[in-house]
Amino acid sequence: MSERLVLHEYAASGNCYKVRLTAALLGLALERRQYDIMKGETRTPEFLANINANGRIPVLQAGDRFIAESNAACCYLADGSPLIPADRFDRADMLRWMFWEQYNHEPNVATLRFWSGWIGEANLTDAQRVQLPGKRSAGEAALKLMDEQLAGRPYFVGESPTLADIALYAYTHVAESGGFRLGDYPNVQAWLGRVAAAPGFVPMDA
Amino acid sequence: MSERLVLHEYAASGNCYKVRLTAALLGLALERRQYDIMKGETRTPEFLANINANGRIPVLQAGDRFIAESNAACCYLADGSPLIPADRFDRADMLRWMFWEQYNHEPNVATLRFWSGWIGEANLTDAQRVQLPGKRSAGEAALKLMDEQLAGRPYFVGESPTLADIALYAYTHVAESGGFRLGDYPNVQAWLGRVAAAPGFVPMDA
Repeated sequence: MSERLVLHEYAASGNCYKVRLTAALLGLALERRQYDIMKGETRTPEFLANINANGRIPVLQAGDRFIAESNAACCYLADGSPLIPADRFDRADMLRWMFWEQYNHEPNVATLRFWSGWIGEANLTDAQRVQLPGKRSAGEAALKLMDEQLAGRPYFVGESPTLADIALYAYTHVAESGGFRLGDYPNVQAWLGRVAAAPGFVPMDA
Repeated sequence: MSERLVLHEYAASGNCYKVRLTAALLGLALERRQYDIMKGETRTPEFLANINANGRIPVLQAGDRFIAESNAACCYLADGSPLIPADRFDRADMLRWMFWEQYNHEPNVATLRFWSGWIGEANLTDAQRVQLPGKRSAGEAALKLMDEQLAGRPYFVGESPTLADIALYAYTHVAESGGFRLGDYPNVQAWLGRVAAAPGFVPMDA
Protein backbone atom coordinates (compact mmCIF):
# COMPACT_ATOMS: atom_id res chain seq x y z
CA MET A 1 0.00 0.00 0.00
CA SER A 2 1.48 3.34 -0.99
CA GLU A 3 -0.65 5.57 1.24
CA ARG A 4 0.46 6.57 4.72
CA LEU A 5 -1.07 4.43 7.46
CA VAL A 6 -1.57 5.86 10.96
CA LEU A 7 -3.15 3.94 13.81
CA HIS A 8 -4.93 6.12 16.35
CA GLU A 9 -4.85 3.90 19.40
CA TYR A 10 -4.49 3.07 23.08
CA ALA A 11 -1.74 0.47 23.11
CA ALA A 12 -3.15 -1.82 25.83
CA SER A 13 -6.46 -2.23 23.96
CA GLY A 14 -6.82 -5.62 22.33
CA ASN A 15 -8.92 -4.01 19.61
CA CYS A 16 -5.96 -1.78 18.72
CA TYR A 17 -3.56 -4.74 18.88
CA LYS A 18 -5.64 -6.52 16.21
CA VAL A 19 -4.77 -3.79 13.73
CA ARG A 20 -1.06 -3.79 14.66
CA LEU A 21 -0.89 -7.59 14.40
CA THR A 22 -2.59 -7.56 10.99
CA ALA A 23 -0.16 -4.94 9.71
CA ALA A 24 2.81 -6.88 11.12
CA LEU A 25 1.77 -10.17 9.49
CA LEU A 26 1.37 -8.29 6.21
CA GLY A 27 4.69 -6.43 6.57
CA LEU A 28 2.99 -3.03 6.45
CA ALA A 29 4.48 0.02 8.21
CA LEU A 30 2.11 1.70 10.64
CA GLU A 31 2.65 4.99 12.45
CA ARG A 32 1.13 4.98 15.92
CA ARG A 33 -0.53 7.83 17.78
CA GLN A 34 -1.51 7.27 21.41
CA TYR A 35 -4.65 8.47 23.22
CA ASP A 36 -5.22 7.89 26.93
CA ILE A 37 -8.78 6.57 27.14
CA MET A 38 -8.65 6.84 30.95
CA LYS A 39 -8.24 10.61 30.52
CA GLY A 40 -11.04 10.89 27.95
CA GLU A 41 -8.69 11.75 25.10
CA THR A 42 -10.98 10.02 22.56
CA ARG A 43 -13.99 12.10 23.65
CA THR A 44 -12.55 15.56 23.03
CA PRO A 45 -14.35 17.78 20.49
CA GLU A 46 -11.29 17.52 18.21
CA PHE A 47 -11.25 13.73 18.28
CA LEU A 48 -15.01 13.48 17.71
CA ALA A 49 -14.89 15.95 14.82
CA ASN A 50 -11.76 14.70 13.06
CA ILE A 51 -11.05 11.06 13.97
CA ASN A 52 -14.20 9.20 15.05
CA ALA A 53 -17.60 10.66 15.94
CA ASN A 54 -18.18 7.48 17.97
CA GLY A 55 -15.38 8.48 20.39
CA ARG A 56 -13.55 5.18 20.29
CA ILE A 57 -10.24 3.74 19.28
CA PRO A 58 -8.77 2.12 17.24
CA VAL A 59 -9.16 4.22 14.14
CA LEU A 60 -7.02 3.46 11.11
CA GLN A 61 -6.06 6.48 9.06
CA ALA A 62 -5.30 5.64 5.42
CA GLY A 63 -4.06 8.78 3.72
CA ASP A 64 -6.60 11.40 4.78
CA ARG A 65 -9.47 8.97 5.39
CA PHE A 66 -10.45 7.16 8.59
CA ILE A 67 -11.71 3.65 9.31
CA ALA A 68 -13.22 3.02 12.75
CA GLU A 69 -14.03 -0.44 14.17
CA SER A 70 -11.04 -2.71 14.67
CA ASN A 71 -12.27 -5.58 12.51
CA ALA A 72 -13.14 -3.26 9.61
CA ALA A 73 -9.66 -1.74 9.81
CA CYS A 74 -8.14 -5.23 9.67
CA CYS A 75 -10.26 -6.02 6.59
CA TYR A 76 -9.01 -2.86 4.90
CA LEU A 77 -5.36 -3.72 5.52
CA ALA A 78 -5.71 -7.38 4.53
CA ASP A 79 -7.91 -6.90 1.46
CA GLY A 80 -6.54 -9.15 -1.29
CA SER A 81 -4.03 -10.89 1.02
CA PRO A 82 -3.98 -14.52 2.22
CA LEU A 83 -5.33 -13.33 5.59
CA ILE A 84 -8.74 -13.21 3.84
CA PRO A 85 -9.74 -16.50 2.21
CA ALA A 86 -10.30 -16.49 -1.55
CA ASP A 87 -13.22 -18.92 -1.29
CA ARG A 88 -16.64 -17.29 -0.92
CA PHE A 89 -17.89 -19.57 1.86
CA ASP A 90 -14.64 -19.37 3.80
CA ARG A 91 -14.65 -15.59 3.51
CA ALA A 92 -18.16 -15.44 4.99
CA ASP A 93 -17.12 -17.94 7.66
CA MET A 94 -14.20 -15.70 8.61
CA LEU A 95 -16.58 -12.75 8.96
CA ARG A 96 -18.92 -14.94 10.99
CA TRP A 97 -16.20 -15.39 13.64
CA MET A 98 -15.32 -11.70 13.53
CA PHE A 99 -18.93 -10.60 14.10
CA TRP A 100 -19.24 -13.25 16.80
CA GLU A 101 -16.10 -11.86 18.42
CA GLN A 102 -17.60 -8.38 18.70
CA TYR A 103 -20.97 -9.62 19.94
CA ASN A 104 -20.23 -12.67 22.13
CA HIS A 105 -16.56 -12.48 23.08
CA GLU A 106 -15.34 -8.90 23.40
CA PRO A 107 -18.22 -7.58 25.59
CA ASN A 108 -17.49 -10.37 28.09
CA VAL A 109 -13.85 -11.45 27.90
CA ALA A 110 -12.46 -7.97 27.16
CA THR A 111 -14.84 -6.09 29.44
CA LEU A 112 -13.99 -8.21 32.50
CA ARG A 113 -10.27 -7.61 31.81
CA PHE A 114 -10.94 -3.87 31.59
CA TRP A 115 -13.11 -3.75 34.70
CA SER A 116 -10.57 -5.79 36.67
CA GLY A 117 -7.34 -4.19 35.43
CA TRP A 118 -8.33 -0.59 34.70
CA ILE A 119 -11.48 0.31 36.65
CA GLY A 120 -10.95 -1.97 39.64
CA GLU A 121 -13.68 -4.12 41.12
CA ALA A 122 -14.16 -1.77 44.08
CA ASN A 123 -14.94 1.10 41.72
CA LEU A 124 -17.59 -0.60 39.60
CA THR A 125 -21.03 0.99 39.43
CA ASP A 126 -24.05 -1.00 40.59
CA ALA A 127 -25.08 -1.42 36.95
CA GLN A 128 -21.67 -2.93 36.19
CA ARG A 129 -21.46 -5.07 39.32
CA VAL A 130 -24.79 -6.76 38.69
CA GLN A 131 -23.55 -7.81 35.23
CA LEU A 132 -20.46 -9.62 36.57
CA PRO A 133 -21.98 -13.14 36.81
CA GLY A 134 -23.61 -12.87 33.37
CA LYS A 135 -20.42 -11.63 31.73
CA ARG A 136 -18.40 -14.34 33.48
CA SER A 137 -20.63 -17.17 32.23
CA ALA A 138 -20.97 -15.64 28.74
CA GLY A 139 -17.19 -15.26 28.51
CA GLU A 140 -16.69 -18.87 29.60
CA ALA A 141 -19.26 -19.98 27.01
CA ALA A 142 -17.39 -18.04 24.33
CA LEU A 143 -14.07 -19.68 25.24
CA LYS A 144 -15.75 -23.10 25.31
CA LEU A 145 -17.23 -22.54 21.85
CA MET A 146 -13.78 -21.58 20.57
CA ASP A 147 -12.32 -24.71 22.14
CA GLU A 148 -14.92 -26.88 20.40
CA GLN A 149 -14.39 -25.17 17.05
CA LEU A 150 -10.63 -25.72 17.32
CA ALA A 151 -10.92 -29.45 18.03
CA GLY A 152 -9.18 -30.99 15.03
CA ARG A 153 -8.72 -27.63 13.28
CA PRO A 154 -5.49 -25.62 13.25
CA TYR A 155 -7.24 -22.26 12.74
CA PHE A 156 -10.82 -20.95 12.79
CA VAL A 157 -11.17 -21.10 9.01
CA GLY A 158 -9.03 -23.26 6.72
CA GLU A 159 -5.43 -24.32 7.13
CA SER A 160 -3.68 -21.00 7.71
CA PRO A 161 -4.28 -17.90 9.84
CA THR A 162 -7.00 -15.47 8.76
CA LEU A 163 -8.37 -12.27 10.26
CA ALA A 164 -10.71 -14.45 12.34
CA ASP A 165 -7.68 -15.76 14.25
CA ILE A 166 -6.24 -12.27 14.68
CA ALA A 167 -9.55 -10.86 15.91
CA LEU A 168 -9.97 -13.68 18.43
CA TYR A 169 -6.32 -13.85 19.51
CA ALA A 170 -6.26 -10.25 20.72
CA TYR A 171 -8.38 -10.61 23.85
CA THR A 172 -8.15 -14.39 24.28
CA HIS A 173 -4.41 -14.48 24.93
CA VAL A 174 -4.83 -12.02 27.82
CA ALA A 175 -8.10 -13.51 29.11
CA GLU A 176 -6.48 -14.60 32.37
CA SER A 177 -6.11 -10.95 33.38
CA GLY A 178 -9.92 -10.91 33.35
CA GLY A 179 -10.08 -13.97 35.61
CA PHE A 180 -10.62 -16.66 32.96
CA ARG A 181 -8.62 -19.91 33.14
CA LEU A 182 -7.08 -20.70 29.76
CA GLY A 183 -5.98 -24.09 31.12
CA ASP A 184 -9.62 -25.15 30.84
CA TYR A 185 -9.43 -24.79 27.05
CA PRO A 186 -6.55 -26.92 25.71
CA ASN A 187 -7.43 -26.49 22.03
CA VAL A 188 -7.48 -22.73 22.52
CA GLN A 189 -4.08 -22.88 24.22
CA ALA A 190 -2.55 -24.87 21.36
CA TRP A 191 -4.06 -22.45 18.83
CA LEU A 192 -2.65 -19.44 20.74
CA GLY A 193 0.78 -21.00 20.30
CA ARG A 194 0.24 -21.48 16.56
CA VAL A 195 -0.82 -17.87 16.06
CA ALA A 196 2.16 -16.60 18.07
CA ALA A 197 4.48 -18.64 15.81
CA ALA A 198 3.21 -17.03 12.59
CA PRO A 199 5.92 -15.29 10.52
CA GLY A 200 5.92 -11.58 11.33
CA PHE A 201 4.01 -12.00 14.62
CA VAL A 202 4.41 -9.17 17.15
CA PRO A 203 3.35 -9.40 20.79
CA MET A 204 0.80 -7.01 22.25
CA ASP A 205 3.37 -5.00 24.21
CA ALA A 206 5.76 -4.50 21.30
CA MET B 1 -26.50 -18.95 -6.90
CA SER B 2 -27.28 -22.54 -7.83
CA GLU B 3 -27.16 -24.03 -4.33
CA ARG B 4 -30.24 -24.34 -2.17
CA LEU B 5 -30.57 -21.53 0.38
CA VAL B 6 -32.44 -22.13 3.63
CA LEU B 7 -32.82 -19.49 6.34
CA HIS B 8 -33.15 -20.92 9.85
CA GLU B 9 -34.92 -18.09 11.60
CA TYR B 10 -37.41 -16.49 13.98
CA ALA B 11 -39.39 -14.17 11.74
CA ALA B 12 -39.77 -11.25 14.17
CA SER B 13 -36.02 -11.00 14.70
CA GLY B 14 -34.44 -8.04 12.95
CA ASN B 15 -31.25 -10.03 12.54
CA CYS B 16 -33.20 -12.62 10.53
CA TYR B 17 -34.94 -9.91 8.52
CA LYS B 18 -31.54 -8.61 7.38
CA VAL B 19 -30.90 -11.87 5.56
CA ARG B 20 -34.38 -11.95 4.00
CA LEU B 21 -34.05 -8.33 2.85
CA THR B 22 -30.63 -8.98 1.34
CA ALA B 23 -31.95 -12.00 -0.56
CA ALA B 24 -34.99 -10.03 -1.75
CA LEU B 25 -32.92 -7.12 -3.06
CA LEU B 26 -30.74 -9.63 -4.89
CA GLY B 27 -33.71 -11.62 -6.25
CA LEU B 28 -32.55 -14.82 -4.53
CA ALA B 29 -35.02 -17.50 -3.45
CA LEU B 30 -34.80 -18.42 0.22
CA GLU B 31 -36.59 -21.26 1.98
CA ARG B 32 -37.56 -20.37 5.53
CA ARG B 33 -37.61 -22.61 8.59
CA GLN B 34 -39.03 -21.19 11.82
CA TYR B 35 -37.77 -21.72 15.37
CA ASP B 36 -39.58 -20.29 18.40
CA ILE B 37 -36.82 -18.68 20.46
CA MET B 38 -39.30 -18.12 23.31
CA LYS B 39 -39.63 -21.91 23.60
CA GLY B 40 -35.88 -22.52 23.42
CA GLU B 41 -36.02 -24.17 20.01
CA THR B 42 -32.54 -22.88 19.13
CA ARG B 43 -31.01 -24.42 22.26
CA THR B 44 -32.01 -28.04 21.67
CA PRO B 45 -29.21 -30.63 21.35
CA GLU B 46 -30.20 -31.11 17.69
CA PHE B 47 -29.98 -27.40 16.87
CA LEU B 48 -26.66 -27.00 18.70
CA ALA B 49 -25.16 -30.05 16.98
CA ASN B 50 -26.43 -29.45 13.45
CA ILE B 51 -27.27 -25.77 12.91
CA ASN B 52 -25.33 -23.48 15.25
CA ALA B 53 -23.32 -24.43 18.35
CA ASN B 54 -23.88 -20.85 19.53
CA GLY B 55 -27.63 -21.52 19.85
CA ARG B 56 -28.75 -18.47 17.92
CA ILE B 57 -30.61 -17.56 14.78
CA PRO B 58 -30.39 -16.54 12.01
CA VAL B 59 -28.32 -19.24 10.35
CA LEU B 60 -28.08 -19.32 6.58
CA GLN B 61 -27.80 -22.79 5.11
CA ALA B 62 -26.10 -22.83 1.70
CA GLY B 63 -26.28 -26.36 0.35
CA ASP B 64 -25.12 -28.46 3.29
CA ARG B 65 -23.06 -25.75 4.98
CA PHE B 66 -24.13 -23.23 7.60
CA ILE B 67 -23.31 -19.55 8.16
CA ALA B 68 -24.20 -18.06 11.53
CA GLU B 69 -24.18 -14.33 12.36
CA SER B 70 -26.65 -12.22 10.38
CA ASN B 71 -24.14 -9.81 8.89
CA ALA B 72 -21.85 -12.64 7.73
CA ALA B 73 -24.82 -14.36 6.07
CA CYS B 74 -25.64 -11.11 4.26
CA CYS B 75 -22.03 -10.84 3.07
CA TYR B 76 -22.21 -14.39 1.72
CA LEU B 77 -25.38 -13.69 -0.26
CA ALA B 78 -24.23 -10.33 -1.59
CA ASP B 79 -20.64 -11.31 -2.47
CA GLY B 80 -19.87 -9.84 -5.89
CA SER B 81 -23.11 -7.82 -6.08
CA PRO B 82 -23.61 -4.02 -5.98
CA LEU B 83 -24.71 -4.34 -2.34
CA ILE B 84 -20.97 -4.59 -1.52
CA PRO B 85 -18.92 -1.66 -2.88
CA ALA B 86 -16.19 -2.47 -5.37
CA ASP B 87 -13.86 0.18 -3.90
CA ARG B 88 -11.52 -1.05 -1.15
CA PHE B 89 -12.08 1.87 1.20
CA ASP B 90 -15.84 1.86 0.71
CA ARG B 91 -15.94 -1.89 1.34
CA ALA B 92 -14.12 -1.44 4.66
CA ASP B 93 -16.39 1.52 5.48
CA MET B 94 -19.43 -0.69 4.90
CA LEU B 95 -18.01 -3.29 7.27
CA ARG B 96 -17.27 -0.53 9.77
CA TRP B 97 -20.99 0.28 9.99
CA MET B 98 -21.90 -3.40 10.18
CA PHE B 99 -19.50 -4.07 13.08
CA TRP B 100 -20.72 -0.88 14.72
CA GLU B 101 -24.30 -2.11 14.33
CA GLN B 102 -23.55 -5.31 16.22
CA TYR B 103 -21.58 -3.57 18.97
CA ASN B 104 -23.26 -0.18 19.49
CA HIS B 105 -26.74 -0.42 17.99
CA GLU B 106 -28.18 -3.93 18.29
CA PRO B 107 -27.36 -4.52 21.99
CA ASN B 108 -29.26 -1.32 22.83
CA VAL B 109 -31.93 -0.58 20.20
CA ALA B 110 -32.84 -4.23 19.56
CA THR B 111 -32.51 -5.38 23.16
CA LEU B 112 -34.89 -2.71 24.48
CA ARG B 113 -37.43 -3.73 21.80
CA PHE B 114 -37.07 -7.36 22.86
CA TRP B 115 -37.29 -6.63 26.58
CA SER B 116 -40.32 -4.42 26.06
CA GLY B 117 -42.24 -6.50 23.49
CA TRP B 118 -41.27 -10.08 24.34
CA ILE B 119 -40.08 -10.28 27.95
CA GLY B 120 -42.17 -7.46 29.37
CA GLU B 121 -40.76 -4.83 31.72
CA ALA B 122 -42.39 -6.43 34.75
CA ASN B 123 -40.55 -9.68 34.09
CA LEU B 124 -37.03 -8.29 33.74
CA THR B 125 -34.38 -9.61 36.10
CA ASP B 126 -32.56 -7.18 38.38
CA ALA B 127 -29.49 -7.49 36.18
CA GLN B 128 -31.57 -6.46 33.17
CA ARG B 129 -33.49 -3.69 34.94
CA VAL B 130 -30.37 -1.92 36.14
CA GLN B 131 -29.13 -1.77 32.53
CA LEU B 132 -32.22 0.06 31.23
CA PRO B 133 -30.91 3.64 31.57
CA GLY B 134 -27.54 2.77 30.04
CA LYS B 135 -29.11 0.95 27.10
CA ARG B 136 -31.57 3.81 26.59
CA SER B 137 -28.83 6.45 26.39
CA ALA B 138 -26.54 4.23 24.30
CA GLY B 139 -29.39 3.51 21.88
CA GLU B 140 -30.17 7.23 21.60
CA ALA B 141 -26.48 7.94 20.99
CA ALA B 142 -26.44 5.32 18.22
CA LEU B 143 -29.48 6.84 16.50
CA LYS B 144 -27.92 10.31 16.85
CA LEU B 145 -24.68 9.12 15.26
CA MET B 146 -26.68 7.64 12.37
CA ASP B 147 -28.55 10.91 11.95
CA GLU B 148 -25.27 12.85 11.78
CA GLN B 149 -23.76 10.41 9.31
CA LEU B 150 -26.83 10.70 7.07
CA ALA B 151 -26.76 14.53 6.97
CA GLY B 152 -26.16 15.21 3.28
CA ARG B 153 -25.68 11.53 2.41
CA PRO B 154 -28.35 9.30 0.86
CA TYR B 155 -26.92 6.06 2.29
CA PHE B 156 -24.25 5.08 4.80
CA VAL B 157 -21.64 4.41 2.13
CA GLY B 158 -21.73 5.84 -1.39
CA GLU B 159 -24.72 6.70 -3.55
CA SER B 160 -26.71 3.45 -3.45
CA PRO B 161 -27.80 0.96 -0.77
CA THR B 162 -25.19 -1.42 0.62
CA LEU B 163 -25.27 -4.09 3.30
CA ALA B 164 -24.57 -1.33 5.84
CA ASP B 165 -28.01 0.12 5.11
CA ILE B 166 -29.67 -3.30 5.33
CA ALA B 167 -27.95 -4.13 8.62
CA LEU B 168 -28.96 -0.80 10.15
CA TYR B 169 -32.47 -0.68 8.69
CA ALA B 170 -33.55 -3.92 10.36
CA TYR B 171 -33.78 -2.71 13.97
CA THR B 172 -33.92 1.03 13.30
CA HIS B 173 -37.25 0.98 11.47
CA VAL B 174 -38.90 -0.75 14.46
CA ALA B 175 -37.01 1.23 17.12
CA GLU B 176 -40.20 2.89 18.35
CA SER B 177 -41.39 -0.47 19.68
CA GLY B 178 -38.38 -0.20 22.02
CA GLY B 179 -39.43 3.27 23.15
CA PHE B 180 -37.17 5.34 20.88
CA ARG B 181 -38.59 8.38 19.08
CA LEU B 182 -37.65 8.29 15.40
CA GLY B 183 -39.11 11.81 15.01
CA ASP B 184 -36.01 13.05 16.79
CA TYR B 185 -33.84 11.85 13.89
CA PRO B 186 -35.10 13.40 10.62
CA ASN B 187 -32.18 12.24 8.48
CA VAL B 188 -32.74 8.70 9.71
CA GLN B 189 -36.43 8.95 8.87
CA ALA B 190 -35.72 10.13 5.31
CA TRP B 191 -33.17 7.33 4.88
CA LEU B 192 -35.67 4.72 6.12
CA GLY B 193 -37.96 5.88 3.32
CA ARG B 194 -35.21 5.57 0.72
CA VAL B 195 -34.34 2.02 1.82
CA ALA B 196 -38.02 1.00 1.77
CA ALA B 197 -38.28 2.31 -1.83
CA ALA B 198 -35.44 0.12 -3.13
CA PRO B 199 -36.42 -2.23 -5.97
CA GLY B 200 -37.21 -5.66 -4.54
CA PHE B 201 -37.71 -4.37 -0.97
CA VAL B 202 -39.78 -6.59 1.32
CA PRO B 203 -41.18 -5.49 4.69
CA MET B 204 -40.26 -7.29 7.90
CA ASP B 205 -43.63 -9.03 8.24
CA ALA B 206 -43.77 -10.35 4.67
